Amino acid sequence: MSAESSIVDVEHIAKIAKAAFESSQLVSSSDRVEALHAIVKELKAGRAEILAANKEDLEAAQVEVDAGNMSKSLLARLDLGSGDKWDSMLQGVLDVAALPDPTGIVTYATELDDGLDLYKVSCPIGVLLLIFEARPEVIVNIAALAIKSGNAAILKGGKESNRTAKLLSEAISAALAKTSLPSTYIQTIQTRAEVSSLLALDQYIDLVIPRGSKELVKNIQHNTRIPVMGHADGLCSIFLDESADLEKAKRVVVDAKINYPSACNAVETLIVHDSLLHTVWPEVGRALLAENVELLCDAATLNALSSLPNPPENLQALVKPSEPSTYDIEHISLTLSVIALPSLQSAISFINQHGSGHTDAIVTESDSAATTFCRGVDSSSTFVNASTRFADGFRYGYGTEVGISTGRIHARGPVGLEGLVIYKYMMRSKSQAGHIVGEFGTGKKEYKHKRIEATSVPF
Amino acid sequence: MSAESSIVDVEHIAKIAKAAFESSQLVSSSDRVEALHAIVKELKAGRAEILAANKEDLEAAQVEVDAGNMSKSLLARLDLGSGDKWDSMLQGVLDVAALPDPTGIVTYATELDDGLDLYKVSCPIGVLLLIFEARPEVIVNIAALAIKSGNAAILKGGKESNRTAKLLSEAISAALAKTSLPSTYIQTIQTRAEVSSLLALDQYIDLVIPRGSKELVKNIQHNTRIPVMGHADGLCSIFLDESADLEKAKRVVVDAKINYPSACNAVETLIVHDSLLHTVWPEVGRALLAENVELLCDAATLNALSSLPNPPENLQALVKPSEPSTYDIEHISLTLSVIALPSLQSAISFINQHGSGHTDAIVTESDSAATTFCRGVDSSSTFVNASTRFADGFRYGYGTEVGISTGRIHARGPVGLEGLVIYKYMMRSKSQAGHIVGEFGTGKKEYKHKRIEATSVPF
Repeated sequence: MSAESSIVDVEHIAKIAKAAFESSQLVSSSDRVEALHAIVKELKAGRAEILAANKEDLEAAQVEVDAGNMSKSLLARLDLGSGDKWDSMLQGVLDVAALPDPTGIVTYATELDDGLDLYKVSCPIGVLLLIFEARPEVIVNIAALAIKSGNAAILKGGKESNRTAKLLSEAISAALAKTSLPSTYIQTIQTRAEVSSLLALDQYIDLVIPRGSKELVKNIQHNTRIPVMGHADGLCSIFLDESADLEKAKRVVVDAKINYPSACNAVETLIVHDSLLHTVWPEVGRALLAENVELLCDAATLNALSSLPNPPENLQALVKPSEPSTYDIEHISLTLSVIALPSLQSAISFINQHGSGHTDAIVTESDSAATTFCRGVDSSSTFVNASTRFADGFRYGYGTEVGISTGRIHARGPVGLEGLVIYKYMMRSKSQAGHIVGEFGTGKKEYKHKRIEATSVPF
Repeated sequence: MSAESSIVDVEHIAKIAKAAFESSQLVSSSDRVEALHAIVKELKAGRAEILAANKEDLEAAQVEVDAGNMSKSLLARLDLGSGDKWDSMLQGVLDVAALPDPTGIVTYATELDDGLDLYKVSCPIGVLLLIFEARPEVIVNIAALAIKSGNAAILKGGKESNRTAKLLSEAISAALAKTSLPSTYIQTIQTRAEVSSLLALDQYIDLVIPRGSKELVKNIQHNTRIPVMGHADGLCSIFLDESADLEKAKRVVVDAKINYPSACNAVETLIVHDSLLHTVWPEVGRALLAENVELLCDAATLNALSSLPNPPENLQALVKPSEPSTYDIEHISLTLSVIALPSLQSAISFINQHGSGHTDAIVTESDSAATTFCRGVDSSSTFVNASTRFADGFRYGYGTEVGISTGRIHARGPVGLEGLVIYKYMMRSKSQAGHIVGEFGTGKKEYKHKRIEATSVPF
């Protein structure tokens, strides 16, 4: 296929996505739920075929692993047949179907004049372009989220799962063809070249959601005018305030580091109040070393550990001096940067300067320190005496997670279905003559602006 | 000044804006209100000097007008001393001060576990870069909005008002220096080169708000990774449904066209249901001609007007055939595109294809047509039997208006103060041991997700 015809094809994909979105505006909430059930049914019917294609993907990936071109962990993520992955994928669609409809919710309503009522009501954004990595079941998860929230979507998975993705995508289209939603509501593409071409089509695509590396997100932000809801990085910190309780400090820091070190909400930097250098810190350090955590320490925290009575055997091997750049690193491993600072205020400034605005926690027994920290740290989640690992859509009660946004507009932090909606205004005149602006103003009618209590639009 | 030192200076401006934002996080709502009152006081004290500078700007502009390089209307907008403009500017600041604080509002709160409460609370976005055109008083308006919502701001006005802007800006800084907000909270810049440099600094600037031409907005979107909340264009339509009431049709269409033709919410295209071609349409056409509106008509609507009994004198002069491209034009003048279409559904498709997603209205007596139109038309405001001119932040009851966003994420349509805030999560463990994630999961604790009724964070 020539480059030119490829661009034309991609424009066609974007156009029919927009058309599918527009034609779906009158599809009811219950019809969307029905579509999700139809997808589950279709996937069940196609199980053998899809898992056979997945096996082909796995075999091709194994060749890459053997040649040293792919990691074993990536291979494992490709496997749709292992454990309860298949059943979880289907259950995920049913879970999304059961969530409350995020659209049609009135968040503001006011009477502008007798018989002139204005409603601000949640609605889908439009056409989403979602780019993600290896796990093929993400196609199904994301299709479910898009359908539930009323958005059309174009999906691009990792190339390693192309065979599986193709069949999953065909099953989704086949299911949609049996519903009141267009079969083109969810489309998948296979190549990076197609993604690049789509990034230019801001007349059709309304939001790009890249889920993957920081580089992927930055690269996309650099190459499109379309808004990007990205998950860039997670450099989370914990500050042990001067009033920190030792047991809380140990539990929270160890959990935040070792529970899942490669997660974006794992802690990467520990800030110790100077006054704790010879009390709380050595015991927290000991607890971390007991879990084989490597500690990159500034001079003060290093010295405090060096003089520890009954030092752990692995102290020499795991405790190392930090460098200035250490505190800008997202380790995503069993490594923790450590620094001592003289005050709450300096800790807040340090986090705002070196952190990524994701999730930061304080361990403290002081109410005022808790308040100051939570307000002063400019991150999407700020916690008191709780592990940074709690920052997650499921744990926050959203049932599912679109991603964790590191942006500062529209949606911030763990994003549930409400991150896939925006709002529109609907207004209706019930007066005999209709409503015109020329009747209002100095010496004429005044706006009433009387709040209306409403949860849905009455027309 | 060399290009290099200029870039360094601009980075300094961006850095101190971010620092000012971060240091302001603990400033209370009442202190912000006090800062707004301090600004009013400072402006009052500086009135003579500021108006003298404004006179210099006007004199320089007059030279440009005389040389044919500037329009008279631009000159008029520069004048801060005319009519009640000065007093309105000060009153605007007091009005913003009196609005409810948009920050600190809890929109979701849930108990994750005994003693572990999560709050989602509105907060400022960060550092705003606002770019706008001639009227110097906009600096004061926007500074007030930024301060009220807790955002630091960098402002760039039109170069024609640089002398006035400089003194307004100095008055704002002098006032802030007497408050608990940093004097660098609001900064102004003077050149496009500075804007270009700032657009690269996404590590410091969180949102760009350009208020001006479609070209300005598009140019900025093309040249930055920073999110842009822009007002691109307003191609608004009105559809006369087959059940349209004649009097409503006449009143609504005429108001939407003539009330303020150069506004973005003025109607640009009239769509007439085929069945009205010889009933409602000729009378609506007559009413528009009586207001000297030029009508660019398709064959059907043109023919229907041509056979009008007692045709108005200006019919020949003002009624002209349209071309296919006519329906993509934002006239912003006393010109209206007109087309006949056979159905509600075709009208909705036409608007979604040719409109700009700003504001569209239907004139109808049918409940179902009203509902179908409001849901099917993918615009930020959809109205029934009301003029498109109602789409405005003040009319919607927001007290003031940041702008009208034509974007589809974060804020859409008329944007009040709530468009300048986002949210963060705050969570506090009250348990004896702190809270860790490792205690939850299969065979362990389960998340409670019990909703908490709260309007503000209790810590």
